[in-house]
Amino acid sequence: MGRPRARAARVMAPRVDVCPMAPDTNRRWLLASRPTGEPTREDFELEAAAVPEPGPGEVLVRTRYMSVDPYMRGRMRDADSYADPWAVGEPMRARCVGEVVESNHRDLTAGETVTGNLYWSEYAAVDGDDLEPVDTGDLPVSTALGVLGMPGRTAYVGTVDVGRVEPGDTVVVSAAAGAVGSVAGQIARVAGCRVVGITGTEEKADWLTGELGFDAAIDYRAADDLAGAVGEACPYGVDLYFENVGGEVSDAVTGHLADYSRVAVCGKIALYNREDGEVTRGPRRLHQRTRTRVEGFIVSDHAHRFEHIGDRLRRWVAEEEIRYRETVTEGIEDAPEAFLGLFEGANVGKQLVRVG
Amino acid sequence: MGRPRARAARVMAPRVDVCPMAPDTNRRWLLASRPTGEPTREDFELEAAAVPEPGPGEVLVRTRYMSVDPYMRGRMRDADSYADPWAVGEPMRARCVGEVVESNHRDLTAGETVTGNLYWSEYAAVDGDDLEPVDTGDLPVSTALGVLGMPGRTAYVGTVDVGRVEPGDTVVVSAAAGAVGSVAGQIARVAGCRVVGITGTEEKADWLTGELGFDAAIDYRAADDLAGAVGEACPYGVDLYFENVGGEVSDAVTGHLADYSRVAVCGKIALYNREDGEVTRGPRRLHQRTRTRVEGFIVSDHAHRFEHIGDRLRRWVAEEEIRYRETVTEGIEDAPEAFLGLFEGANVGKQLVRVG
Repeated sequence: MGRPRARAARVMAPRVDVCPMAPDTNRRWLLASRPTGEPTREDFELEAAAVPEPGPGEVLVRTRYMSVDPYMRGRMRDADSYADPWAVGEPMRARCVGEVVESNHRDLTAGETVTGNLYWSEYAAVDGDDLEPVDTGDLPVSTALGVLGMPGRTAYVGTVDVGRVEPGDTVVVSAAAGAVGSVAGQIARVAGCRVVGITGTEEKADWLTGELGFDAAIDYRAADDLAGAVGEACPYGVDLYFENVGGEVSDAVTGHLADYSRVAVCGKIALYNREDGEVTRGPRRLHQRTRTRVEGFIVSDHAHRFEHIGDRLRRWVAEEEIRYRETVTEGIEDAPEAFLGLFEGANVGKQLVRVG
Repeated sequence: MGRPRARAARVMAPRVDVCPMAPDTNRRWLLASRPTGEPTREDFELEAAAVPEPGPGEVLVRTRYMSVDPYMRGRMRDADSYADPWAVGEPMRARCVGEVVESNHRDLTAGETVTGNLYWSEYAAVDGDDLEPVDTGDLPVSTALGVLGMPGRTAYVGTVDVGRVEPGDTVVVSAAAGAVGSVAGQIARVAGCRVVGITGTEEKADWLTGELGFDAAIDYRAADDLAGAVGEACPYGVDLYFENVGGEVSDAVTGHLADYSRVAVCGKIALYNREDGEVTRGPRRLHQRTRTRVEGFIVSDHAHRFEHIGDRLRRWVAEEEIRYRETVTEGIEDAPEAFLGLFEGANVGKQLVRVG
């Protein structure tokens, strides 16, 4: 399937100005140790390795933006999950956007911008079949990792496919100012719902009710009575709870679930740094009476919907029906900080690392 | 279950001023003959009968508003359908709103306004268990037969439950200015869809794009190229077609169905006056490629949703999110004209007959 190297080199030749040759070293992050509880910077190790050579059918990509996501905490743990655990001493993986430097793949040429599951690294050599060209139109290529990428798709699948939003629903979103939550709430708003966001600072709450058009936002750190605040914001009860958080925030919502309500379980970031021994306890509130459906989902199971969802998201962003923010950390050397910040809610919108 | 008559009479006594005693005659419409093709006035016969006496558990209701609906054409035909055929020489049935004149039922008292499946008649004696109290709040009681009644419920079930509208969908509604279509289009608008109505006069088209907030409306009688007009109004294709009409209007839409589109088949009024021998022919356009789902539905199968749907509809009408019109024919003697007018699109919104 791969185009012979010699030919790829010929294609590359005239573009040498826009695609400078790779330097000698490739900085990349390894998982140094498996954290217990909260990870620290010492669990990561920055290594200078050789720039990899792309094999047949492979492509050498220079990373421009790297995604850090809460689900990665699960991959640092040696436990069964939907994503395989990372091995200690091995490079860490991440969804990235980058530029093709050298291609042995029939469909990709040097200079193209692509996205795929790469590494926390400056360069990566991967099978070209696993890369997609980035098509963000007039928008920055970084949006392929945020509003137009996995987080945007997750928001759509969670509200529409799993959450089955109906016009007139009241939708509560936790981690509402995050990459997924901020888009989920806006999709629900477009879908004719009353949207209430739960978030961790007053500034984020203002962003939600201001620019993003949420009907209400609750700063859970400032609320004396979080359950009461949810009840006040949801006079007809909660029809859909888009769950990103778990723990006590979740408890505050579940007491208000309406008849035939749904809980779309996207993630539980509040629990990711807890170990198995520490099962958290709280009210057991899901009764038969309300016919609530609680359903976990993984966006990758919905791949057949991505083209459709991408069309919708691109259109809404172009029409400013949906707005987004990105929090960009500069330099690969601070990737662990960017990742650890997720658990403190340091980001507004999508957290990215700009590389090189 | 019924309260003894004597007791009911005692309850009624003090209300005699608001509920005058029934007169001696009860005008009612019988099915005089089974029409072939288009029905005419001669297929109906107005008879003066005695006012019925309510039996144990029964209630005497004086009709205030009577519904005429396209589905009734099916009941005039001696053929299998979801509603039993009417017998020639027997009274015709209709959803009505009326006042309790006399009650032998434990839960209903004279003076109350109720709705139920009654007759094309001035009075009816029916089992009180088959009646519901009318709860239209500040709205006229007639809305219990329109936007808050069966047509409103049908519109909701067709768009949300069967049609599975998603925000961003393009929704086409035929018979869009009718009782069901006008509400269906507005629900789709609330649900974040682009809504295109097909209707039969310029005045109706203006109502749809004006007061009701449709994105576009097409007067099918004025369009030289109806399919072209649908294509122009639906640049991304048609995700949901809310089918009330059938025939050539339907053909004009099906050519534009998008991938994963749905057709919610609510009715096919254009075909109701055709006999079995006259199967209409047209393009066979439903290919596997678009994965279109065509699904017929009958609102009564969704009874478990009516409370939920009623809450939504009442709220939207109160907030003027959804607007409605009624076309009221005065006097029971013109009920057949009101019914026959449905097939010519004489009505805007819900067609009713005011009785007495």
